[in-house]
Amino acid sequence: MISQQYKNMLTGKSVIRELAEFASARGKEIGYDNVFDYSLGNPSVPAPPKFAEAMIELLQTKSSRELHGYSPSLGIQTVRDKVAASLNQRFNMNYTANHIFMTSAAASALAHAVRLVTGPGDEILTFAPFFPEYNPYINLTGAELKVVPAETDGFQINFEQLEQMLNEKVMAVLINTPNNPSGVVYTSATLKKLADLLSAKQKEYGHDIFLISDEPYREIIFNGVESPYVSSFYDNSISCYSYSKSLSLPGERIGYLAVNPACTDADLFVPMCGQISRGIGHNCPASIMQLAIAEVLDITSDISIYETNMNLIYNELKSLGFNVTKPGGTFYILPKALEEDAAAFCRKALKYDLILVPSDSFGCPGYFRMAYCIDTEKVKRSLPVFKRFVEETYQ
Amino acid sequence: MISQQYKNMLTGKSVIRELAEFASARGKEIGYDNVFDYSLGNPSVPAPPKFAEAMIELLQTKSSRELHGYSPSLGIQTVRDKVAASLNQRFNMNYTANHIFMTSAAASALAHAVRLVTGPGDEILTFAPFFPEYNPYINLTGAELKVVPAETDGFQINFEQLEQMLNEKVMAVLINTPNNPSGVVYTSATLKKLADLLSAKQKEYGHDIFLISDEPYREIIFNGVESPYVSSFYDNSISCYSYSKSLSLPGERIGYLAVNPACTDADLFVPMCGQISRGIGHNCPASIMQLAIAEVLDITSDISIYETNMNLIYNELKSLGFNVTKPGGTFYILPKALEEDAAAFCRKALKYDLILVPSDSFGCPGYFRMAYCIDTEKVKRSLPVFKRFVEETYQ
Repeated sequence: MISQQYKNMLTGKSVIRELAEFASARGKEIGYDNVFDYSLGNPSVPAPPKFAEAMIELLQTKSSRELHGYSPSLGIQTVRDKVAASLNQRFNMNYTANHIFMTSAAASALAHAVRLVTGPGDEILTFAPFFPEYNPYINLTGAELKVVPAETDGFQINFEQLEQMLNEKVMAVLINTPNNPSGVVYTSATLKKLADLLSAKQKEYGHDIFLISDEPYREIIFNGVESPYVSSFYDNSISCYSYSKSLSLPGERIGYLAVNPACTDADLFVPMCGQISRGIGHNCPASIMQLAIAEVLDITSDISIYETNMNLIYNELKSLGFNVTKPGGTFYILPKALEEDAAAFCRKALKYDLILVPSDSFGCPGYFRMAYCIDTEKVKRSLPVFKRFVEETYQ
Repeated sequence: MISQQYKNMLTGKSVIRELAEFASARGKEIGYDNVFDYSLGNPSVPAPPKFAEAMIELLQTKSSRELHGYSPSLGIQTVRDKVAASLNQRFNMNYTANHIFMTSAAASALAHAVRLVTGPGDEILTFAPFFPEYNPYINLTGAELKVVPAETDGFQINFEQLEQMLNEKVMAVLINTPNNPSGVVYTSATLKKLADLLSAKQKEYGHDIFLISDEPYREIIFNGVESPYVSSFYDNSISCYSYSKSLSLPGERIGYLAVNPACTDADLFVPMCGQISRGIGHNCPASIMQLAIAEVLDITSDISIYETNMNLIYNELKSLGFNVTKPGGTFYILPKALEEDAAAFCRKALKYDLILVPSDSFGCPGYFRMAYCIDTEKVKRSLPVFKRFVEETYQ
């Protein structure tokens, strides 16, 4: 039968998509330069030139079969070797290629991670504010996503609520640090406390609880901010990574899943991912993309621009009296709206061609997200407009 | 809990993979040139130079954001337009971009097609001999694959068996023409008869029955062989395509799903695919790959080599007295083994460094598959060896 489940999903509207469409339509009207579009997390800085150079060299020097022939379903061995070595060197871990599974970016990595360690009826906890796509990513597997309310005083973890929500059905906890949408980076203290609590609960319940770490923003950390590596805090952990943000390659859909070598069944997980792929129709990333990525593993785009933008915006928001947590990384910030209904706040901002995203879908109502992966020049032009919007609307 | 289902799947061994590993190990011993490896369907002819040229031009002329930025989850609009126009021109159809969903090759297209038109408990029929990956592709969705026994006298469809197996739970029929492993192309008469039967059963059961057409070998058709376009025979049809074989790009994982514009809910299916993607972690193919493919839609690699190879092998098999159906396309052939146990036959061939695949996993025991996507020169060298193997073993 034609699937009613997926047909029903068509009626759900994405606020972010609607806003992006408004921005695009308005851009056609008044020029896109005049629309201050803070809606989408599409990296604005170019990919490092070395990436295109690596691609061109591969195309000019490798034979068609070497370059375009079937690659192993777990990823190309030499690429997995290099990813493991890079992680070990940077984070003092002990990965081998056997712990690295190449994926079509973070969404695919999460699709495999969830299926590795949960089944229908199991619960997965995550923390507000959270990336709303986690809902379909998890709930369509038959497991159930439950959201621990936000700790709004700094957007670390609300441990009191977490303890209340932990129960025997919880098989995994999903975290995202540096965080979309808050821009906050979990501290070592937060990660240590989380690891201790999960370790205790594993003993109490007599089963594994996995920590799934969604970390596409791992490289985008601002000056002076501590950036602990999640998997070094807890053995039963799986990292899900994407090169979309650090290398400005979101359209190229490449990333990986890294299994902590110290976790239960560590050496089985990557082969199990190969089995999961057969059921969900995953094909490992394009071979040429894997080979090119292997040449740029340890570099990033010029991500310093995001920090410049953040400081401009954060300072302006503070001077306008906003209640806002200073981001430690990413290209997001999540200030409190100036009225309870964040959607109403964002609708009013639209009249000033300011595209802001209300936080309701992030599980933390009353705030708004700004994605400041846009030109610094445009950020600067937007600030007086933002000021005018606030003064004319709320003073 | 760590998934027992996927852990259990690790113990299943793939005969094809084992043979390929044997070939690789033996190649290291005696030189790969001396191993007659007919095990893998990895295209041997190079991709058309225009593909690499298109990639390089994109890398040299497009901005990073145009080239590598987020692309829409359904695929890039201009690419979908071009795919639709190409299909319309070649097959006299009425596709628009709204019917084209870009996928990470055929496995992903099938993953979406199955979820579009079936749910847990539904049955999908396919015809032996069949690509054994259909088992996990379908059974892991909760639907059940049932295999209609082969019509061994020509490898068209066994309609008598099909009629017996059709029942109200059958929501889709999956075909693969030109066929892996037989190399046979379904005739217009076969497709017409199938369409008539399914139309009658739709009325009888009062629900849609979809025809899912897996057609990665669509372009590889030999001289004088009729090659009907499946979807032109039956309204409720979905084509699953991959550029892996026609353009020799299996590692680059790009293809599409094309919804027959005349089918039930035709305009909903592609948006529904976008919803399905969220649950299975599918990301549309790499943007640069989509843009490059759009430049080479109507060309192919030099696939004439496969016909040269086929004729050499077919003629030798006939002269050695094999019972074999002449392939109409692909780069496969499926002769009857010279003893009942095809695995034993293939094991004996290994002593001559001939790597043949027994047909048991294709649902049609007693045959063996040869994938002749190898150099013609090697095919020629293999024939006297094949002859010696047969004469010394079976005469």
